[in-house]
Amino acid sequence: MIKADETLEELGIGSLVLIQKKNGFRFGTDAVLLADFAKDIHSKCTLDLCTGSGIVPILLSQKSNAERIVGLEIQEDIYEMSCRSIEKNLLNSRVELVCGDLKNITSHFPKRSFNLVTCNPPYMKCGSGIKCDDFSKHIARHEIACTLEDVIKAAEAMLCVGGHFCMVHRPSRLADIMELMRKYSIEPKRLRLVLPKAGKEPTLILIDGLWHGGSELKILPPLVLYNEDGSETDELKAIYGRS
Amino acid sequence: MIKADETLEELGIGSLVLIQKKNGFRFGTDAVLLADFAKDIHSKCTLDLCTGSGIVPILLSQKSNAERIVGLEIQEDIYEMSCRSIEKNLLNSRVELVCGDLKNITSHFPKRSFNLVTCNPPYMKCGSGIKCDDFSKHIARHEIACTLEDVIKAAEAMLCVGGHFCMVHRPSRLADIMELMRKYSIEPKRLRLVLPKAGKEPTLILIDGLWHGGSELKILPPLVLYNEDGSETDELKAIYGRS
Repeated sequence: MIKADETLEELGIGSLVLIQKKNGFRFGTDAVLLADFAKDIHSKCTLDLCTGSGIVPILLSQKSNAERIVGLEIQEDIYEMSCRSIEKNLLNSRVELVCGDLKNITSHFPKRSFNLVTCNPPYMKCGSGIKCDDFSKHIARHEIACTLEDVIKAAEAMLCVGGHFCMVHRPSRLADIMELMRKYSIEPKRLRLVLPKAGKEPTLILIDGLWHGGSELKILPPLVLYNEDGSETDELKAIYGRS
Repeated sequence: MIKADETLEELGIGSLVLIQKKNGFRFGTDAVLLADFAKDIHSKCTLDLCTGSGIVPILLSQKSNAERIVGLEIQEDIYEMSCRSIEKNLLNSRVELVCGDLKNITSHFPKRSFNLVTCNPPYMKCGSGIKCDDFSKHIARHEIACTLEDVIKAAEAMLCVGGHFCMVHRPSRLADIMELMRKYSIEPKRLRLVLPKAGKEPTLILIDGLWHGGSELKILPPLVLYNEDGSETDELKAIYGRS
């Protein structure tokens, strides 16, 4: 069930495990923070875009009450690997993965069929940043297979009334994100900055938008990941289920 | 020089003083934080919109190197009072106040004539919040005389090439602010959240936009005002010139 170029990792949350490529794109704190940020949004059906290894659906299966969690991934080999993670976690009854392109999302799912859409998208604009040797890793990091606008447009198409869209991204893109969310009728409602340490610049942002919501943004207290001495903060420990 | 319904206050920054209405809108930390946030932006000519008591131009006369600082105020009695503050601080050669409506800004100043525009605008949408008994206070707090869009539109008209627009506002309006800044070709470049204490929700945001700037936002470390024990943080002390 595990191939030579893969590893099986315990997530440290319940008994969850994850299969990942040894040299490919590996999940980071981003995905864990996103799943935690989205966990309390009431959702019967949740969709995770750019799902990769399936980390967000797998975490949400533990953290949220959603009856059905679907992940969409464009790369066939990653999709196939992630399906084995779902099987290994015995999650087949709740989590389903689909191989496909979010640019044609309505060919995969009916419009307005999800209460919550999550996404940990590629952060870098096409042509920016360091090019990765590994093509699969490159797709996960750069806007090659989809742009920020593609992601938000796809989310809009899937959200039903009262539906939320949650994303993790880089601070530098906040103005782009807010502009595109509004363009696609997803009103920013919650924003949280993620700081590596107190007093530092944020390295990530978590944003939650409501489909056709009224304009009133709540900015939450910053999430600080590490204490001065480099140890995890109590909040980060709680997110990883270690407290 | 000081009327019966006014007070003269020492600002605690150099020997600066300020005349304010006893029962009117009085300057708050907001204006001090805005002046500090904008102080290092290179500017020959600076314009402060909704200048009120003239607090931002007066602070910038100490904190920045601008040769000329202009404040625009719509209320005649406030304008007249603020002119006396400028005189009392012997700032007439650098600071000039103008009584007028920012909705007709080009009737007061030629287009593209400022390097920096600052504004501590009314925060509340017309019809929201508690109505103030004092009409002048009401105008300072609510979008009666001007909306957020009026402010940003006026700033755009005044900025010259390389010009910056700095504003302090409520976190809840961030999406509106970013959308309107982009609508008027002012690209958000620096954003800072102001937290009353570490771990709390921000109560203010400071935003700096560049006229026709490229899209890349820098989110600064949050500015924390008070320590756990309620004493001022070192950064707040430094802003008030008390360190």
